[in-house]
Amino acid sequence: MNSKKKFAVILAGSGVYDGSEIHEATLALYAISKNGGEYQIFAPNIDQHHVVNHLTGEEMAETRNVLVEAARIARGNIKDLKEFKAGDFDAILFPGGFGVAKNLCSLAFDGADCNVDSGIENVLREMHKAAKPIAALCIAPALIAKVISNVEVTIGQDAGTAEAITQMGAIHVNTNHGEIVFDKENKIVTTPCYMLDATIAQIGEGAEKVVKTIMALSI
Amino acid sequence: MNSKKKFAVILAGSGVYDGSEIHEATLALYAISKNGGEYQIFAPNIDQHHVVNHLTGEEMAETRNVLVEAARIARGNIKDLKEFKAGDFDAILFPGGFGVAKNLCSLAFDGADCNVDSGIENVLREMHKAAKPIAALCIAPALIAKVISNVEVTIGQDAGTAEAITQMGAIHVNTNHGEIVFDKENKIVTTPCYMLDATIAQIGEGAEKVVKTIMALSI
Repeated sequence: MNSKKKFAVILAGSGVYDGSEIHEATLALYAISKNGGEYQIFAPNIDQHHVVNHLTGEEMAETRNVLVEAARIARGNIKDLKEFKAGDFDAILFPGGFGVAKNLCSLAFDGADCNVDSGIENVLREMHKAAKPIAALCIAPALIAKVISNVEVTIGQDAGTAEAITQMGAIHVNTNHGEIVFDKENKIVTTPCYMLDATIAQIGEGAEKVVKTIMALSI
Repeated sequence: MNSKKKFAVILAGSGVYDGSEIHEATLALYAISKNGGEYQIFAPNIDQHHVVNHLTGEEMAETRNVLVEAARIARGNIKDLKEFKAGDFDAILFPGGFGVAKNLCSLAFDGADCNVDSGIENVLREMHKAAKPIAALCIAPALIAKVISNVEVTIGQDAGTAEAITQMGAIHVNTNHGEIVFDKENKIVTTPCYMLDATIAQIGEGAEKVVKTIMALSI
């Protein structure tokens, strides 16, 4: 039996300023599919922290739901995070975007003292307890640092965020475009993506390296 | 001088059911960047025909703007279609999604008798007149069929849409996953993408073939 590796991909909305970064999410799904894996997309059924007009950068007087908006990236094929079971998956992957720091946790407002959505916290704890790989792009490694602590991750080179990650009890490693940090003991793979001033080709490179690293693990 | 080929990419919102298909748009941008090109994203500054909840498929009692929502895919780096000048670009590319058939033209409602947004019509006519390449994914080739007529395109194998394209005065060629139709005389390159029941890896394959075909042209 050569069964396909199955990833759970967790989204935080749809759009870099208030949700999941669309290129990172799409190119992660692409890397999984192209390298012979499968995926199921999840998002928490909660309101977004706010809605940002991506043309002007201004806040809009609207309310949008994280699960409903994330369904745009998923083409409707998405599940409520409450339905997630660690036993169903070989690995989990978090794309970045401000939605991770605004909807999945409060990092954008509270820094190292942030709270993490209880559903997200459970998912991370279950996967880590089951010794299954966890991947995170861009700002999403901060979630792992906060929940699991004592891990080695990268968010690129942003000094303030790196400092917050260190305060959370994790080790931050500076990286450049397309580079990954692989914490072998904890099976955690991270890459900076748009935490650096990257091209979309560099996002694809980082996402593919992360996925290939997980594909190569005997899980 | 080995200057980079510059693509204008025209979006119709953000989300398969009421805007641009996100995977097609992202993987087209990725293919352009990876193959050494550059892009500028545009969208018309008009209201969407409607807003669809991508989780349930139901219409929502909201109004959203095509340019503002497309800015999510563009990370804010997008221009009003009114600013488009054919002289600034080597090629133009239209990703698919229902937004093409609902916002950029009325194909979803009027079939072969559809109207095309006047800004979109101008852009297509200008590029064609300048003998510059036009690329379209998924349902977007119908725009070219309607405006330029007498061209050879593909939207895959959907009989109803193929018939509408024939009624518009164009020639439809059936294709399978990742295949393209290249109308050399008119410099038009099309591929079916999610007009077939495709994986995201197949979307990437189709988008890359389209972009590479255009890159190989002496423009």
